[in-house]
Amino acid sequence: MRKLKLIGIGAGNPDYITLQAINALQQANVIFVTDKGEQKRELLRARREICARHMGTREYRVVEMKDPERDRAATAYGPSVVDWHERRTALYGQVLRDELSDGECGAFLVWGDPSLYDSTLRIIDQLTARAELAIDLEIIPGITSIQALAARHRIALNEIGESIHVTTGRRLNDETLGAGASVVVLLDRGCAFKGLAADDLDIYWGAYIGTPDEILISGKLGEVSGRIEELRARARSQHGWIMDTYLLRKRATSSH
Amino acid sequence: MRKLKLIGIGAGNPDYITLQAINALQQANVIFVTDKGEQKRELLRARREICARHMGTREYRVVEMKDPERDRAATAYGPSVVDWHERRTALYGQVLRDELSDGECGAFLVWGDPSLYDSTLRIIDQLTARAELAIDLEIIPGITSIQALAARHRIALNEIGESIHVTTGRRLNDETLGAGASVVVLLDRGCAFKGLAADDLDIYWGAYIGTPDEILISGKLGEVSGRIEELRARARSQHGWIMDTYLLRKRATSSH
Repeated sequence: MRKLKLIGIGAGNPDYITLQAINALQQANVIFVTDKGEQKRELLRARREICARHMGTREYRVVEMKDPERDRAATAYGPSVVDWHERRTALYGQVLRDELSDGECGAFLVWGDPSLYDSTLRIIDQLTARAELAIDLEIIPGITSIQALAARHRIALNEIGESIHVTTGRRLNDETLGAGASVVVLLDRGCAFKGLAADDLDIYWGAYIGTPDEILISGKLGEVSGRIEELRARARSQHGWIMDTYLLRKRATSSH
Repeated sequence: MRKLKLIGIGAGNPDYITLQAINALQQANVIFVTDKGEQKRELLRARREICARHMGTREYRVVEMKDPERDRAATAYGPSVVDWHERRTALYGQVLRDELSDGECGAFLVWGDPSLYDSTLRIIDQLTARAELAIDLEIIPGITSIQALAARHRIALNEIGESIHVTTGRRLNDETLGAGASVVVLLDRGCAFKGLAADDLDIYWGAYIGTPDEILISGKLGEVSGRIEELRARARSQHGWIMDTYLLRKRATSSH
């Protein structure tokens, strides 16, 4: 039996880490680190710093995993992701067998929270379901970029007694913005808010939230939409990657 | 100018606290503590333990605020809540003026995250908007009961690329459960899941999550609904209060 902990390290500020995450880190013999695409280098550095800061003189190994590339050009969203997961599952299974001995404790350091738009958990579940590995799994929640966005804008995510809808740029459209709902958008690679009827919408946008590079913009969507798009493009080209999140809300509804 | 920090201390496990929250606590001269209803005593104790554990030998004052009772019998949800907020705003304004001197730093310890279904932030905003107090406000996010639920059940909150809907027991109905969506329900005082067409729904339910009293139940809604209702009633009468959360998901959709 191998122990495995999926540790949410929070999104942005290194101080978002919880005591539970620190305690879990200190039990790990092996730290698995994976990242996709452009932001890889900076996020790898952030994770290495977290280990250096919290694992003290404890001996541990760091294993970097090169995630297979995802076919983003594929028109069908579902199949390309399923295939990508399949390749990742094979990779993770192999690395876990090779790098983590029976009785040892491994940890995946997950940006944000392992239960929110992160696939590590699904991959581990699949390995367990196929009986490829016997794993004693623990999940450690972490502060998400949604919470960081709200905290830095100093806003509530919900209106009184109303719902919150969390979705992706791909799924965002005018229908999403029903009465009273606050809509949080993640994983938007192309400013999906541009396609909305902006008349009565407010936006609270943030990039690199909780880091020294943080950018925050809020206001009426129709008034700030262009500025966000421009700043986003400039920041992305400057950093080589961007991670941004936003909240949309209809202005008509009561705000106290 | 008074400094005020709304500190999310996480929901349940005391180790959910973040380093950012601990750092903020250590700057506070005054800790404001408020609670509503039956769970008051236990949550007060949890907060006092957090202060004792993390503020060390630092001198600080704890000010307990007796929240006005909310008229839960009122038929109109909106007005009764607005009136209740009004009375709380008056109370908070008075206590802040009386107990926090200019130049001091105060902290509200908020269960979970101050941006999610908590009204402290709205009240402070109202005091600021009325120019009753000049406040330098900071919000510190904390692990929510939603994240604790997912971590303890070892599940993802979303299906691949799909949305998440967060709502209250009051607003839950069959329409909420659209295709692909995962629905998280908070603040449900009466097992609202009983009213749903249960055929193709799975439920992941938890109470006192992250504490030694934690109860977790998951399964097909039609099969476990009665057991949850029964256990919930028994636990509530035993503890004098209950705090529970659950996730509902249509079984038909792909789960990997």
